[in-house]
Amino acid sequence: MATLQAIKYSRGKLLVLDQLRLPHENHYDEVSTAEEAFDCIRSMRVRGAPAIAIVAALAHAVELHNGDCTATEPEEVIAHIEKRLDYLKESRPTAVDLSNAITLLKLATRAANLEGLAHPEAKEAILNTYIQTAEEILAKDLHNNTSIGSHGAAWLQQQYNASSEKPISVLTHCNTGSLATSGHGTALGIIRTLHSEGLLKHAYCTETRPYNQGSRLTSFELVFEGIPSTLITDSMAGALFNLHRERMNIGAVIVGADRVVRNGDTANKIGTYQLAVLARHHGVKFVVAAPTTSIDLETENGSAIEIEERKREELTQISGAIVNEDGTVDTSKTARVAIADQRIGVWNPAFDVTPHELIDAIVTERGTVVKGADGKFDFSQVLPERLASVAARQL
Amino acid sequence: MATLQAIKYSRGKLLVLDQLRLPHENHYDEVSTAEEAFDCIRSMRVRGAPAIAIVAALAHAVELHNGDCTATEPEEVIAHIEKRLDYLKESRPTAVDLSNAITLLKLATRAANLEGLAHPEAKEAILNTYIQTAEEILAKDLHNNTSIGSHGAAWLQQQYNASSEKPISVLTHCNTGSLATSGHGTALGIIRTLHSEGLLKHAYCTETRPYNQGSRLTSFELVFEGIPSTLITDSMAGALFNLHRERMNIGAVIVGADRVVRNGDTANKIGTYQLAVLARHHGVKFVVAAPTTSIDLETENGSAIEIEERKREELTQISGAIVNEDGTVDTSKTARVAIADQRIGVWNPAFDVTPHELIDAIVTERGTVVKGADGKFDFSQVLPERLASVAARQL
Repeated sequence: MATLQAIKYSRGKLLVLDQLRLPHENHYDEVSTAEEAFDCIRSMRVRGAPAIAIVAALAHAVELHNGDCTATEPEEVIAHIEKRLDYLKESRPTAVDLSNAITLLKLATRAANLEGLAHPEAKEAILNTYIQTAEEILAKDLHNNTSIGSHGAAWLQQQYNASSEKPISVLTHCNTGSLATSGHGTALGIIRTLHSEGLLKHAYCTETRPYNQGSRLTSFELVFEGIPSTLITDSMAGALFNLHRERMNIGAVIVGADRVVRNGDTANKIGTYQLAVLARHHGVKFVVAAPTTSIDLETENGSAIEIEERKREELTQISGAIVNEDGTVDTSKTARVAIADQRIGVWNPAFDVTPHELIDAIVTERGTVVKGADGKFDFSQVLPERLASVAARQL
Repeated sequence: MATLQAIKYSRGKLLVLDQLRLPHENHYDEVSTAEEAFDCIRSMRVRGAPAIAIVAALAHAVELHNGDCTATEPEEVIAHIEKRLDYLKESRPTAVDLSNAITLLKLATRAANLEGLAHPEAKEAILNTYIQTAEEILAKDLHNNTSIGSHGAAWLQQQYNASSEKPISVLTHCNTGSLATSGHGTALGIIRTLHSEGLLKHAYCTETRPYNQGSRLTSFELVFEGIPSTLITDSMAGALFNLHRERMNIGAVIVGADRVVRNGDTANKIGTYQLAVLARHHGVKFVVAAPTTSIDLETENGSAIEIEERKREELTQISGAIVNEDGTVDTSKTARVAIADQRIGVWNPAFDVTPHELIDAIVTERGTVVKGADGKFDFSQVLPERLASVAARQL
């Protein structure tokens, strides 16, 4: 079966899955210009930090491939590219991946080897450098995800001596799958790899209130790929572990990360922290899947992470496709409904911080990091240079 | 400020709040016949085990008061009453409170003192006995709730040395308030009493997925009574304790009970169990509020409690009042919307069982029960006769 793809790309053509129509409709938009990418990102048709960066980078690659740049002099060509990238950056100014990708694309383009080249070869070389760099961002993200999947699955297999005769079940939270990345996913990537290797008994996913990424997106991915799976409310995780851990061989909670700091404290979607407490109480492993780009060695521990609070309507209202009187779903009509007293005070933190004490493993594309005898995560095996550079600056 | 009342009664007149219109509309139905009560219960316009029993008992009291019974001979009058009660019982056959109330009403009516009375005095005596017994059920429920409120508030005050200078905050789950009872409520009754005594800093309530009794009903009650309060998703309880326990002096999670068994294990709305685990992890007390009628001494421990699983649509669809494009809520129009992939597998247990190890106190109308040195709850102080009778039968 084909893997679910949020982004389909071949040189000169970019298709992006419209996630607002999920799970009811499977529609791809053709994105051929920076303006179309901007709109696609701004309107949330594509979401997930890696996916946003990739769509922005590739949309500009497509328009360059299609001859959008009329400049001829190298400096003008570079100025054109930078202007378009600056414009794209504004589609989601807070996204770190997007901003990092744009910095990388600018540096690579400026570093294009133009030695001995004049127009039109010089322009061609710059455009090719840009396009190749954008394509490498896509390829690298996919490679990172499959590596995280392999490392995570191998670590869990080892912990439980799992096999096709003795597969394990896992619980995940939020959406960290193909829809948020170039494909495969991070936490969901580990689940995909476990499944493809015959090591997965069952995948549980939480609704992930209040924005329901679990029920809207993760459950869609799990159904799409035919992975045996069950949706639960966030309130059922404890009862699930208590009643079904043994029978279902529930071995791990696997989550993604918004940011992992130096001691291993991890910021992630609200609800992650209490899943870690519940996992510990029931003897279930707690695993964080994060590319090394999500590891922030500058920040010492989680107390420095600021928690964004979001608007009350995320709790008191919800949107969805209309359910007809006969129980069928009409995907052509959506409505927004009030599901709580609109006057109640609301606390709506977007994420929480799980202390490293409750985390058993942090899986990166370069390997799985566990705690040493001192109870601390040591990222030197996966990020030796960055750790050394931080240490040097702090001396 | 007037206390929220699901049931307003004076002899000859019964008004019942239509809970299906909450929280958007505050509408009372006049319920004057058994048929109207049946419809009100069956359609869920009134809910909560105590409230249902009271509405059934009082609706029949109103029709008797209004001359519905044309029989004259005592035996015929009693037969009429019993027939109407048997009919009412079918409105919610599984409700223990309703069935107990009907048994009580039948016994009391048959025991009416008719000595030396002939028609019409004998009929009058029977009708009066019925009406008074029904009114006593209402009064007793209200009395039980206020007693639970007082005992619970006193116990918490003592635990934390709480005062108006040093008030405590609490978290509750599901709806256990005025809307489920004759008034005041059980767990929410303790919160009301804390508030009226100036001991409450803040009340938090969970959404209580998947049926949202917290966001629809408890938040309505809290707003109605002007209790300082905040709604959170079920996934935020851990983060709330972790971030705000000290600042807000969060002292307890207070919940109701579907059933408390002999060792104190407590069945309650799904999500209760994990709140108990989270409370323990953060040093927050876990308190169960339950009238002695909810204590089942025949069942030794929670493993014997069967868990009802409910339909998948409770997780994958939701109903509410339409939110217009301008953000206003149109209470005259409701819609049902799909909020998850409709094909995903779903686990939807209606409640879970919290082991007595995680419970600090069980508050009844007769007093607060805590665990002895052996770690076990001893209900002999509140139910000496029933405990003795169970022990005798088991010898």
